[in-house]
Amino acid sequence: MTSSPTRAVVLLSGGLDSTTVLALAAAEGRETYALSFRYGQRHEVELASAARQARRLGARAHEVVDLSHLGRLVAAGTSLLKASERAVPKDSHAASDEIPSTYVPARNTLFLAYALGWAEVLEAAEIWLGVNAVDYSGYPDCRPAFVAAFERLAAEATRAGVQGRGVKLRAPLITWSKAQIIRAGTDADVDYADTVSCYDPVVTDDLPRACGRCDSCRLRREGFAAAGVPDPTRYA
Amino acid sequence: MTSSPTRAVVLLSGGLDSTTVLALAAAEGRETYALSFRYGQRHEVELASAARQARRLGARAHEVVDLSHLGRLVAAGTSLLKASERAVPKDSHAASDEIPSTYVPARNTLFLAYALGWAEVLEAAEIWLGVNAVDYSGYPDCRPAFVAAFERLAAEATRAGVQGRGVKLRAPLITWSKAQIIRAGTDADVDYADTVSCYDPVVTDDLPRACGRCDSCRLRREGFAAAGVPDPTRYA
Repeated sequence: MTSSPTRAVVLLSGGLDSTTVLALAAAEGRETYALSFRYGQRHEVELASAARQARRLGARAHEVVDLSHLGRLVAAGTSLLKASERAVPKDSHAASDEIPSTYVPARNTLFLAYALGWAEVLEAAEIWLGVNAVDYSGYPDCRPAFVAAFERLAAEATRAGVQGRGVKLRAPLITWSKAQIIRAGTDADVDYADTVSCYDPVVTDDLPRACGRCDSCRLRREGFAAAGVPDPTRYA
Repeated sequence: MTSSPTRAVVLLSGGLDSTTVLALAAAEGRETYALSFRYGQRHEVELASAARQARRLGARAHEVVDLSHLGRLVAAGTSLLKASERAVPKDSHAASDEIPSTYVPARNTLFLAYALGWAEVLEAAEIWLGVNAVDYSGYPDCRPAFVAAFERLAAEATRAGVQGRGVKLRAPLITWSKAQIIRAGTDADVDYADTVSCYDPVVTDDLPRACGRCDSCRLRREGFAAAGVPDPTRYA
């Protein structure tokens, strides 16, 4: 008797980390359902890569949730906060002054809430995500404690959860270096030439080219060097 | 020296329970920010009531997040699941067969994720919500264990959270009967004539009228009777 494969929702941005996670899930025999988010025009290049990677790595489906409405919520909150601060002067400089329009507050909580919803409909047993606590330690929602807290929430949030069939979270990269991620992804057949890391990619002949200068490009380039893997990135 | 009031994001559907919660938050001196969700045309009547109640109860702002894109995610998941079940026949009848187009999977997790995001931008200390474990015990995400799990998640999810200034969840109705809710809301000056409970309201002269026959109407009518409060509901 053959059992049907475990279904897994995979958060997929089209970047190096999440594409690696999709490949690792596929390599472990998961039936994958890729989920991406649109929250600003700048991400169209990444979303196009995500769609190609989802096809290439055999995802059963790839859906894109439009979060462009979040800009309004962030803007409304920011302007209300500024009005309050004018009314009640504070010592500290508000961090929200510098919030860019593509900022997603409570980002991974929101992404995982959608993933949990889709997992509920799909009766998926797992959610895979590419958070990494090493390179991005500034973000609380990239830490193991956050991932564990969301898994506990999932066990209380849905009917399947309270029946003991709650969604498990898989964050395989969470303690890996960029070099470890690249080595594992290379073994799992990721086409890194078509993953976007650059903050400011240039699109020519329909494929993105990386600037090669931003922090993200630098981190990525160093990762390939440390992994001993030839860097296939298309630089502008 | 006067301190500025505590900011609170309040989930507001325009129904009896959430409107009561908004009134209770205001009565406790909170500066309230009401948050509603649009996920189907049927809710326009409730959203209009929510907007009026937000104004009436002094909310500093009222924002509506459009979740109509969720229908696509649910439909895609449902049809993929059905295709899988044809391929791998199962004994049990799929619950997803009966999912209506306005179904919101992982509903309160998703609503609270948006509320947490808005709270992060607003630097709000609390999220108030009208979940009730008595009348709606079938929903896992209306139980105290779910609310507690989300509060623990919030403490790990944002910078404020890990700095010990995490958002607190307030679910004052969670163990109350409908009569208790109506009594507390009446004391807190809720205009129950303009809250929507009916599953199928009729809109005349811009205000909704309840059918008086559905389960929700019945529960509400019994609540007013048990509370000893005259029922101001506009019936069709």
